[in-house]
Amino acid sequence: MLSLREREPFLLCATAATLATLAENPIFGVLVPEPALRREWRRRLVDHDGQHDGDGGIARWLKLTDGLGLDRDYVVSLVGLLPATRFAVEAYVHFVREKTLLEAIVSSLTELFSPQIISERLEGMLKSYDFVSRDTLAYFSARPPLAQRDSDFAVDYVKRYAKTPDALQAVLKALEFKCDVLWAMLDALYHAYVAPKHIPPGAFVPQDWNTA
Amino acid sequence: MLSLREREPFLLCATAATLATLAENPIFGVLVPEPALRREWRRRLVDHDGQHDGDGGIARWLKLTDGLGLDRDYVVSLVGLLPATRFAVEAYVHFVREKTLLEAIVSSLTELFSPQIISERLEGMLKSYDFVSRDTLAYFSARPPLAQRDSDFAVDYVKRYAKTPDALQAVLKALEFKCDVLWAMLDALYHAYVAPKHIPPGAFVPQDWNTA
Repeated sequence: MLSLREREPFLLCATAATLATLAENPIFGVLVPEPALRREWRRRLVDHDGQHDGDGGIARWLKLTDGLGLDRDYVVSLVGLLPATRFAVEAYVHFVREKTLLEAIVSSLTELFSPQIISERLEGMLKSYDFVSRDTLAYFSARPPLAQRDSDFAVDYVKRYAKTPDALQAVLKALEFKCDVLWAMLDALYHAYVAPKHIPPGAFVPQDWNTA
Repeated sequence: MLSLREREPFLLCATAATLATLAENPIFGVLVPEPALRREWRRRLVDHDGQHDGDGGIARWLKLTDGLGLDRDYVVSLVGLLPATRFAVEAYVHFVREKTLLEAIVSSLTELFSPQIISERLEGMLKSYDFVSRDTLAYFSARPPLAQRDSDFAVDYVKRYAKTPDALQAVLKALEFKCDVLWAMLDALYHAYVAPKHIPPGAFVPQDWNTA
């Protein structure tokens, strides 16, 4: 019951001038009236940072890069990151920082499609690539239930809070933005490593590039 | 003499705690002690916004897009912008906003090479493409003297203020960053419109794409 009550919208009555002052000053962000929302969102930190060393999504991702023979320090340093990837990820960080809570949550909705896609690709990768194992792909096998839970939450949130035409437009724009982020990352990978294989200066070059 | 004096570094003596408070609060940005620097930098606004309607770099750029047969409202709306271009430009805006004044100014140093490159390409475009004229390319013919002036200023500024190894490292990193921005934009154009011609959803599609 407490949890339900906390998830209801918080209504603050004040003059327009007072509300404007509150809205302008980030210190009043601590008044965000949804501890239940923060508890829900906190799960994503737990998912990625884990409960102890070697646990969590980031650790599983590094297991994948280890398994592919990449130097861990090099991976963690991000030195070899494609600039277009960095710019896209930074655009996402700035988006969720600067937009409304609704738009920020909506931008996670691409997870809606990932349980099925990841499951299909996981089996495909195991079948087709002898350089990966179920163990190195643990990042992906752990994702579907988390993605399912996260997208269920986001869909529920949108249904609750996107009630006006303007809000629905903002929802669509936010999801388009997130698709642009993912698409730009894939295009940059394709351009650098598939065709025409133009790797930007300083970015990762596969060891067997010349013999591939 | 006043101008010279104003371009000298401004020395503020205070306790570490006071200096930290000043550094944290953007209101003290009005204390930036260089009206001469702001006057110099203001020229870039004048260059692009012009002195009246139809004047300045942006107006000349729209003359180019008009000349190429593009709808002006469509161009100005940025609807057809490649997402990777948008992300790269936003990364640049965030860079100059968040980094030091030295790094922000240094990131303009790619202009160092543009007077020669633009002049060569201008002649090449006029010789090779019958769909452009000296008039539609006015944006480019106006740039070289401005780019020369801007890069002369930036080189002089770096020589004056980048005196420590750390500052020089920051200078190199800032210039690398700016090159990454330009490179990512060119790669995105190449990927979408040269090879493999994968245009992201929603981005500009040339009218004669199918008959080209």
